[in-house]
Amino acid sequence: MPTTRKLSQRASDLPASPIRRLAPYAVAARAAGKKVYSLNIGQPDIRTPGEILDRLKTYEDVNIPYGPSQGTPEFLETLQSYYRSCGLEVGIEDLFVTTGGSEAILFVLGIIADPGDEILVFEPYYTNYSGFAAMLGVVPVPVTTPADQGYHLPDRSEIESKIGNRTRAIMLCSPNNPTGTVYTDQELELLADLCKKHDLYLVADEVYREFTYDGLKHRSALTLPGMEDRTIVVDSLSKRISVCGLRIGNIVCRNKELMAAILKAGQARLCPPTLGQHLGAGLMDVPASYMTEVIAEYEGRRDLVFDALSAIPGVGLRKPEGAFYVCAGFPVDDADRFAQYMLEEFDHGGETVMMAPAEGFYATPGLGRDEARIAYVLNRDDLTGAMKALAEGLKVYPGRT
Amino acid sequence: MPTTRKLSQRASDLPASPIRRLAPYAVAARAAGKKVYSLNIGQPDIRTPGEILDRLKTYEDVNIPYGPSQGTPEFLETLQSYYRSCGLEVGIEDLFVTTGGSEAILFVLGIIADPGDEILVFEPYYTNYSGFAAMLGVVPVPVTTPADQGYHLPDRSEIESKIGNRTRAIMLCSPNNPTGTVYTDQELELLADLCKKHDLYLVADEVYREFTYDGLKHRSALTLPGMEDRTIVVDSLSKRISVCGLRIGNIVCRNKELMAAILKAGQARLCPPTLGQHLGAGLMDVPASYMTEVIAEYEGRRDLVFDALSAIPGVGLRKPEGAFYVCAGFPVDDADRFAQYMLEEFDHGGETVMMAPAEGFYATPGLGRDEARIAYVLNRDDLTGAMKALAEGLKVYPGRT
Repeated sequence: MPTTRKLSQRASDLPASPIRRLAPYAVAARAAGKKVYSLNIGQPDIRTPGEILDRLKTYEDVNIPYGPSQGTPEFLETLQSYYRSCGLEVGIEDLFVTTGGSEAILFVLGIIADPGDEILVFEPYYTNYSGFAAMLGVVPVPVTTPADQGYHLPDRSEIESKIGNRTRAIMLCSPNNPTGTVYTDQELELLADLCKKHDLYLVADEVYREFTYDGLKHRSALTLPGMEDRTIVVDSLSKRISVCGLRIGNIVCRNKELMAAILKAGQARLCPPTLGQHLGAGLMDVPASYMTEVIAEYEGRRDLVFDALSAIPGVGLRKPEGAFYVCAGFPVDDADRFAQYMLEEFDHGGETVMMAPAEGFYATPGLGRDEARIAYVLNRDDLTGAMKALAEGLKVYPGRT
Repeated sequence: MPTTRKLSQRASDLPASPIRRLAPYAVAARAAGKKVYSLNIGQPDIRTPGEILDRLKTYEDVNIPYGPSQGTPEFLETLQSYYRSCGLEVGIEDLFVTTGGSEAILFVLGIIADPGDEILVFEPYYTNYSGFAAMLGVVPVPVTTPADQGYHLPDRSEIESKIGNRTRAIMLCSPNNPTGTVYTDQELELLADLCKKHDLYLVADEVYREFTYDGLKHRSALTLPGMEDRTIVVDSLSKRISVCGLRIGNIVCRNKELMAAILKAGQARLCPPTLGQHLGAGLMDVPASYMTEVIAEYEGRRDLVFDALSAIPGVGLRKPEGAFYVCAGFPVDDADRFAQYMLEEFDHGGETVMMAPAEGFYATPGLGRDEARIAYVLNRDDLTGAMKALAEGLKVYPGRT
């Protein structure tokens, strides 16, 4: 009998998730009785609005049927109203419901790029872009955003130097995961200008749209003039109303040819989750006060984490402007090793933290080795405990630089 | 300004769904007041068990969080118990929960095949295999199963003649969509033998496992000896408990290296739907009588549809052995045109039917032009009306041969 058939090249190319790699160490730490503050993934503790959860109790069908591939009419209309409430007019035909923002990214990359084609991404970037790119054979080309400039965009010429013959799109996440950066109007317009000049799509991941602080307003890429055929927004309910597990996202794009191709991709998987859309259809019943309170809570958490990290000698960071992440540089040999140390060997009164080492958020080898991402998704008491443990851990970590 | 950037080649390669292509004609027919019997998609009218739907009311978390990428421990254990109840022993590590059987197919094809690699499929076959293959650049190579042999497998030599240098797997759906064929032990063993000889994977789509009639037993590919590293089962809750819209499926495979790669693909999309798994975790609470009654109902429907179709002059078919589909040959010039005619121009006392033309289920050009798939997913009164309308439509259709 021959040896077992090998896996595909793409199976090797798929990155292991840096966010979840340390999970077994966290399991072991908890099994050993430690309290582990999970700052490593963007799973908020925020409650889902009652207007959404109550819809679980009003589901009345005798079964849970397929819906249309594009999404249920009820939920599509809800999305249209939601965008209108954000000052964005979009047609029902400009919307496509997906299984989380994840599937939106997969479909968009697949529809605009073939194997070997390139997508410009600003690193550090949301790792899972690399996962979807690997599935599709698409190549993410990194443009580094410098930590000491708050991860804002580099010069036009530096971005332009990465645009080549195979470039199909520029991808931007704002407010940004993992850096918390909210890009300015000027930065958006620069990218729009480059897209027009080089005939590229602009893929804007805006799943953190509402999460901006200090009165800063997020500008949607959908407002960019002359970009109607080029702008593709990837969106999700996950963070907006704390329903990460619903797996309901969507695409917004006014390019009809592109949306027709998205429909073909969507038909293959039949439909996005019916129950999730049933719940999501309550979105406009959620009072504005819900979001205001959630944003205020996150702003308080950001301040707490920023102040605590800033007070630790050797930690370098800029105040994040949005989302619920902060990337910081740590005085360590290797943030991955440090994160593992915190779980495996350290505790402060029985407590420790789990962070996401940032190296996995970079495509350029060697970058981000001393950085980590902290998701401030816990309540302030827990964050206070977590920051204390982190500060103490840094004092005794053998690889401290 | 340059013209808008083109879409990818794969956007062109994606097939339009033959099952849903006629939808606008059905919408127009209904708008014109016709009653349209939908026999075109596998959306059953069967109720979901109360043991499952009631779990909607007992969801108690304050939000709907991400779960593990592999699936929630609770649902994985339920799946393990379910397979045990089918006489199949599988480890938790052999299971991976997906967003419907759809995502299971996407992940499996992606992990075993690169662009240009080939997968043997038996045509007519579930069209969406082609959609996922197009997304991944994988090539489905058809082996025709002849209608006059009940769509059972052709000779070993004919199958073997299609296996080449780039072949990575043989894919089998049993009980079959769209033909209703249940493959025999000898057919399964033949494929296993070919997989071992040519170093291939066997991808078995068993989402209709329970749906067999006339006392016929389905044999899972998981029972094939010496195939532990090669057999990959694709599965789904959708049809089993009438929860197509939940989007909960799974992969079963004992090849650890392959499952590690599946995990990487799964991490990119974070997790399958949390609520769907919460409901699915009630699977073992559903009494055996539920499935017995559902199978009896489908068997009665199959008999009704088979008898009615057999009585129509010129219609050719064999009695399907499982699933809830039948493929039949019609005395028409083109089943696609006939299906459109039935929606656009015909009615029998205000009633008509919508069928799925079978040409889209074939990869070989020209095959299946006079065949259509009928899903017997309506109650018997409706099926009686539908068969009557179909018979009358065939009498007056101008393209009758």
